[in-house]
Amino acid sequence: MFRHTSNLQFEAKPDKPDALFAMKLQELIGGAWGEMTVTMQYLFQGWNCRMEGKYKDMIMDIATEEIGHVEMLATMVGRLLEGAPDDVTAEAVKDPAVAAVVGGMNPQHAIVGGGGAVPADSVGTPWNGKYIVASGNLMADFRANVAAEAQGRLQTARLYHMTDDPGVKQMLRFNLARDTVHQNQWLAAIQQLKEDGLEDTVVPDALFDEENQEHARTHWHLSDGGEADRGPWASGQAPDGRHSFEYMADPSPLGGKASAPAPQPHQYVTSRRDSSDASKQPSQDKSAAEKIKDTFQ
Amino acid sequence: MFRHTSNLQFEAKPDKPDALFAMKLQELIGGAWGEMTVTMQYLFQGWNCRMEGKYKDMIMDIATEEIGHVEMLATMVGRLLEGAPDDVTAEAVKDPAVAAVVGGMNPQHAIVGGGGAVPADSVGTPWNGKYIVASGNLMADFRANVAAEAQGRLQTARLYHMTDDPGVKQMLRFNLARDTVHQNQWLAAIQQLKEDGLEDTVVPDALFDEENQEHARTHWHLSDGGEADRGPWASGQAPDGRHSFEYMADPSPLGGKASAPAPQPHQYVTSRRDSSDASKQPSQDKSAAEKIKDTFQ
Amino acid sequence: MFRHTSNLQFEAKPDKPDALFAMKLQELIGGAWGEMTVTMQYLFQGWNCRMEGKYKDMIMDIATEEIGHVEMLATMVGRLLEGAPDDVTAEAVKDPAVAAVVGGMNPQHAIVGGGGAVPADSVGTPWNGKYIVASGNLMADFRANVAAEAQGRLQTARLYHMTDDPGVKQMLRFNLARDTVHQNQWLAAIQQLKEDGLEDTVVPDALFDEENQEHARTHWHLSDGGEADRGPWASGQAPDGRHSFEYMADPSPLGGKASAPAPQPHQYVTSRRDSSDASKQPSQDKSAAEKIKDTFQ
Amino acid sequence: MFRHTSNLQFEAKPDKPDALFAMKLQELIGGAWGEMTVTMQYLFQGWNCRMEGKYKDMIMDIATEEIGHVEMLATMVGRLLEGAPDDVTAEAVKDPAVAAVVGGMNPQHAIVGGGGAVPADSVGTPWNGKYIVASGNLMADFRANVAAEAQGRLQTARLYHMTDDPGVKQMLRFNLARDTVHQNQWLAAIQQLKEDGLEDTVVPDALFDEENQEHARTHWHLSDGGEADRGPWASGQAPDGRHSFEYMADPSPLGGKASAPAPQPHQYVTSRRDSSDASKQPSQDKSAAEKIKDTFQ
Amino acid sequence: MFRHTSNLQFEAKPDKPDALFAMKLQELIGGAWGEMTVTMQYLFQGWNCRMEGKYKDMIMDIATEEIGHVEMLATMVGRLLEGAPDDVTAEAVKDPAVAAVVGGMNPQHAIVGGGGAVPADSVGTPWNGKYIVASGNLMADFRANVAAEAQGRLQTARLYHMTDDPGVKQMLRFNLARDTVHQNQWLAAIQQLKEDGLEDTVVPDALFDEENQEHARTHWHLSDGGEADRGPWASGQAPDGRHSFEYMADPSPLGGKASAPAPQPHQYVTSRRDSSDASKQPSQDKSAAEKIKDTFQ
Amino acid sequence: MFRHTSNLQFEAKPDKPDALFAMKLQELIGGAWGEMTVTMQYLFQGWNCRMEGKYKDMIMDIATEEIGHVEMLATMVGRLLEGAPDDVTAEAVKDPAVAAVVGGMNPQHAIVGGGGAVPADSVGTPWNGKYIVASGNLMADFRANVAAEAQGRLQTARLYHMTDDPGVKQMLRFNLARDTVHQNQWLAAIQQLKEDGLEDTVVPDALFDEENQEHARTHWHLSDGGEADRGPWASGQAPDGRHSFEYMADPSPLGGKASAPAPQPHQYVTSRRDSSDASKQPSQDKSAAEKIKDTFQ
Repeated sequence: MFRHTSNLQFEAKPDKPDALFAMKLQELIGGAWGEMTVTMQYLFQGWNCRMEGKYKDMIMDIATEEIGHVEMLATMVGRLLEGAPDDVTAEAVKDPAVAAVVGGMNPQHAIVGGGGAVPADSVGTPWNGKYIVASGNLMADFRANVAAEAQGRLQTARLYHMTDDPGVKQMLRFNLARDTVHQNQWLAAIQQLKEDGLEDTVVPDALFDEENQEHARTHWHLSDGGEADRGPWASGQAPDGRHSFEYMADPSPLGGKASAPAPQPHQYVTSRRDSSDASKQPSQDKSAAEKIKDTFQ
Repeated sequence: MFRHTSNLQFEAKPDKPDALFAMKLQELIGGAWGEMTVTMQYLFQGWNCRMEGKYKDMIMDIATEEIGHVEMLATMVGRLLEGAPDDVTAEAVKDPAVAAVVGGMNPQHAIVGGGGAVPADSVGTPWNGKYIVASGNLMADFRANVAAEAQGRLQTARLYHMTDDPGVKQMLRFNLARDTVHQNQWLAAIQQLKEDGLEDTVVPDALFDEENQEHARTHWHLSDGGEADRGPWASGQAPDGRHSFEYMADPSPLGGKASAPAPQPHQYVTSRRDSSDASKQPSQDKSAAEKIKDTFQ
Repeated sequence: MFRHTSNLQFEAKPDKPDALFAMKLQELIGGAWGEMTVTMQYLFQGWNCRMEGKYKDMIMDIATEEIGHVEMLATMVGRLLEGAPDDVTAEAVKDPAVAAVVGGMNPQHAIVGGGGAVPADSVGTPWNGKYIVASGNLMADFRANVAAEAQGRLQTARLYHMTDDPGVKQMLRFNLARDTVHQNQWLAAIQQLKEDGLEDTVVPDALFDEENQEHARTHWHLSDGGEADRGPWASGQAPDGRHSFEYMADPSPLGGKASAPAPQPHQYVTSRRDSSDASKQPSQDKSAAEKIKDTFQ
Repeated sequence: MFRHTSNLQFEAKPDKPDALFAMKLQELIGGAWGEMTVTMQYLFQGWNCRMEGKYKDMIMDIATEEIGHVEMLATMVGRLLEGAPDDVTAEAVKDPAVAAVVGGMNPQHAIVGGGGAVPADSVGTPWNGKYIVASGNLMADFRANVAAEAQGRLQTARLYHMTDDPGVKQMLRFNLARDTVHQNQWLAAIQQLKEDGLEDTVVPDALFDEENQEHARTHWHLSDGGEADRGPWASGQAPDGRHSFEYMADPSPLGGKASAPAPQPHQYVTSRRDSSDASKQPSQDKSAAEKIKDTFQ
Repeated sequence: MFRHTSNLQFEAKPDKPDALFAMKLQELIGGAWGEMTVTMQYLFQGWNCRMEGKYKDMIMDIATEEIGHVEMLATMVGRLLEGAPDDVTAEAVKDPAVAAVVGGMNPQHAIVGGGGAVPADSVGTPWNGKYIVASGNLMADFRANVAAEAQGRLQTARLYHMTDDPGVKQMLRFNLARDTVHQNQWLAAIQQLKEDGLEDTVVPDALFDEENQEHARTHWHLSDGGEADRGPWASGQAPDGRHSFEYMADPSPLGGKASAPAPQPHQYVTSRRDSSDASKQPSQDKSAAEKIKDTFQ
Repeated sequence: MFRHTSNLQFEAKPDKPDALFAMKLQELIGGAWGEMTVTMQYLFQGWNCRMEGKYKDMIMDIATEEIGHVEMLATMVGRLLEGAPDDVTAEAVKDPAVAAVVGGMNPQHAIVGGGGAVPADSVGTPWNGKYIVASGNLMADFRANVAAEAQGRLQTARLYHMTDDPGVKQMLRFNLARDTVHQNQWLAAIQQLKEDGLEDTVVPDALFDEENQEHARTHWHLSDGGEADRGPWASGQAPDGRHSFEYMADPSPLGGKASAPAPQPHQYVTSRRDSSDASKQPSQDKSAAEKIKDTFQ
């Protein structure tokens, strides 16, 4: 269960409105790497976590913080939209600076949101549930979390250079800081998973004996750039300590032809057999009983 | 420019068809963490890479390999669908094993694909471009790549236990191996980025002086699980070597109230002012000229 | 079956083109609360209606009218796009008013639609079937209809202030009027459902004896804003006449811990058990037979 | 800012697992009318609310409660998935009851979620931001909220009949109750908005003098069902007290022909002029300067 | 403007319900090639048509017919769902035939639609506006229409073999017939466009002198299948009568390296320059004025 | 399996950057009719092709070429974005030409892509898998391919007029040429399918005896435009040589009323029966056993 305090985790007050920047800032709310994503990703990871204790507690602490980040950003967007020139017609524009706003602002901020934030990104694409992952495997998920915080801080840094507003920049400095600490935290947690013997470098830490060993160490050189063999990914010991990389300079396919099986007549798929008389007689198709027998024998 | 050989990178021959497993295997083709994702993610990363040389060449080698993985899986799905009982009516089902197939197979495999694979996941959600990222920052992107390979190998491992078919398992063993080597490779590349002095632990390696230092090291304890302070993410040195974690056991909000500004009358947003006479007179709204002046002063 | 007359329900002639407003007006065509939504929502509600007679006939009358509204708006958008400066390069722009149009117009109006409307909203997000509902329960659906007409009239009113064009405003005055009458009609129909004894205030009008009575009247105070108890939703009789509201000023959770069950070994989910030897041996997983027995016992 | 307690608002313990019902229950998590929808809808409405005080406080109380409902449902889904037969092949199925589960369970629960809930609906469609609205106009939004709670309780009631599990039914009884109280609360709030003089019946409460009065009261009879005139939506006073309904038994279109304007040559749109020599000479298109002049004259 | 008659264009009565087939039949309602697609595609094409007369009139006749096809299919789905075993738990299933239905039916038919059709396809993916095209160029659009009718008839033919129900088959025979006539009609219209001198074989019939002639006739052999030169697409006269095909057996790339330009420092993109001191000093980035000058010189 | 050469198929060098055109050019990368679409459409068609030999080889040649087209366009977009004024605030804009760029450029090019292309269209909608079809029926698919190349060349021609940049125009001339040759090739292949006796005009070439003959030749006149009978689609022999068109000037519906069946009590659907006492007693619903019997008798 959750509780809410109406104070923001950190202040979100622009010095003055800027509808064009409001549109851009939506990327941090509803973008693929925005705060709705980390909120929902961490919540579902926490709820799906199979171990009571420090990992789950840490996930839930950060998840709960992230809901408050969506709140900060939504508040900031609303304030940036104050007095936005949403009813200025193009014809009335006399100033290039206004032209950039009138042409560039998000029309849904006015028409749909009435001057408030929307759960979408900087081009108006709505947030969706496929942006998140909660697999239950903490190593796989913490890596996704590191990636999310890295992309998130990168986007925040880019947005930091797109505004001169001292109030906005003050909030973004807080956001940058939180993305820094969260990157560090997920990296520390990854290390701890190894130290606790819960997971190892390669996810999942299993099936190595089953997997095709000779293919678990080779780099297939398939593009004619000539320097792919100059990195530590092409020779030497792999990070998992189990494999030695091998560079295949001129690899050949190992499989046979990529062919498709004969179609069933009732599917009207083009094929040699399809053009024969038989193809016009789906009734000659196998009986359901025969088909069933085929399927399980 | 690309070239194609009609031989598969690795064999993709099931011992016998299995339409139910074909549906599940779609997750590795068009799922958020499937082969279409890594194909497109690596291709766009390679095309957007700003440094000629080893990194770009490595990315393009692996990207090109991944196209061939989509091909292997699409071929496998087509072969698993051979003779699928897609025209068996529910009423005709007499065997529980057949019932599971008839109820569980993907109807679009028959109706849309005519017995072939589709660019969608195991529940039929189409692949979309938001699954990938190519930010230009190699550290951020390689972390997303490690995460993708980890989630991908995890899903492959789960699918490995959902089939008994020796031919399918043989191919999945190859897929597992490739996901192992690729995880190792992206991890090695992350290390190399640091050694080459191109990027550091926290992404991006900049703006530290600007960011709010006191907030770049604190864990906010906001969920009442009591053990979040027992991990290395709550105290001690952070992985970036720049910060010392600090656990805030009872943090208070730093910001003011999360309020929204007064609305514009012509937006018909409910507010005190909105209920006054003024709100019924949008003509008293500021002129475009005044609004513009506000915006840029 | 439907028939069409090539005359519009109401005139849709702008005095002059305005490509920027054309983009905004798309919200009323393909937005979540636009005319495609009410068209499809009412059509599916009419087709799914289980009572012949006045309700169904009314739904189908309005549904059929709405198809004509999409037609009016698509016609208007096409006319607003006449002669749009879609081939003016940014470099050639010398006038701020033109800059707003060139930067702000929807590129798909030119590239995809060739100067015609598209089935999308004002930021280009395509209309989709999840915008509508037709549940078969007329009370639930008529409430969704009132909401749709209210949001629709609100958006129309906002757009009304974004143009000075007399021809556009004339059409929008008609749209406003139709949204007024439809709001009134769905409200009247909700009242009639009650009078006919078909549905009551709370949807569905059933399961009250089953539902947890003590929780059917309480307001949980979970956010520290202090005035939520000052409205009629916190005390006094509820609109359904069945319940008396009760304000819980300091509610405690009623459930136990939000924990997740132990994972199955073959899922490679991180857990204590997962880190033991057993976790590396999925073959020790229960047999299918045992699993089945578990599931149904 | 938010805080979290690890106890659930209400208990979420099934008596035994049921993977098929887990799939269905996803509708209440990530469906268009599920708990993620009301969570996000109320949060954004609260953040965008322009009046401090009772309305905003009430919205935030309920919004905060709804996050906890997603938590309850996600917890329930995870527990229902315990020991799901996700690795049982179709061929191994010997029992019809198992066949229904093996064919009917959501493959992503196993492959993607590792036995945990996903942010999607009962057919796997991911939740998206277009499901919610926060327009700033409280009357419009509260109506959307009533509709959401009505559809939500209806779906919960349907799901209530799809399970015999006492533990699941106990939780659903709580959900039903909360949907009852929330329907009542939003209805009470709608009434209060009127009593406070903030909004009136028709949304928005403005532009009546501008709107086309004669069209603000007529029912257009456009479908040949003959009983649409028998309801209070076709005659008598409208709910807003401003209009008297009028039934137009045989309405004629008021507008002219739905024609599209002449295309621009460089768009290669098929037209009479397009087939002339001129159409092959886009260079004869108007200059940018002329086009601009057209646009704003 | 549209009118509706409550009689169906053709009868839609199944002999008995079949919830599993109802799910499959949704492909023809809300699938990418279903009736919602042709309805909306033809409506928008008609509204965007720039020539009054026979083409537009034909498009609108067929478009109006298609709305009625959605109606027929929605009616059929509703009737197929009558008495669907949506409240049968898996555990209660004793019969394989029932297992296939209980596992295979669309849960949203019950939970969301209350026994009625939904605007989605056979796996529950909602219809969306990107399925249609209305470009204004009739040749391009009529080809899309032929393709749509061909895919539609193909899917209908496949569904025809998935049911034994005489009533369903009777309706599908009508659907097949309409898809036949519409394929023929769009093909006839394509021929007529040429005869009327409005469009020619290649779309658009312009820019041939501008386009790179030597590349307008060559087949690039890039996949090692050896028989691509054996068809009329590799040699001889092309269908447009303007070109002679040429088979390039061993083509070489004509362009230079696929490199990306140097990044801007404030974007934090990994690059050699990025690793220098300069990269840490975005303030050394060019001024806005210089940047603007660059852009337009 | 695929291989890659780092040289582009054709040069992709703009004379100077143009961030506004970069946004528009995205339509050819990730639009519904862009190069990602033809790439994936042809790849899946090739992989699903059921006949080894010339058709499959031709498809795979063209498919492989198209991957290289995505590469060319992504490279061009990256170069057009060089030095884009993404950090210029609206307030700083002094020049109308810059205003058009600042307002009109895609914010995700900067925030997400770091100056590189994204897998989306010109309004930022992500590419998705529903844009493609691979049905196995080559006639149906080749028609979709002709349509795709026609829409693609049309869009390219429109974009050709939106830029003055010689380098961009040079590349677009190559793209136009390739779209010309591919249109011709798919048309030639359609002809060849007929000559090889594999498919005929109407897709699929089957079920004619089953389909409702009298409805396979009629044009239903349902819109009051008066000239639909003046084309070859309304009389004379149909293109398939099997049917003679017939114009139905005043057609009547052939079916009965579009009614829906009685609902099940536990669905809480509004109906006469629903309002009776019975409707409040779902326990009187039929037993599962009876329901099952109903379904299959």
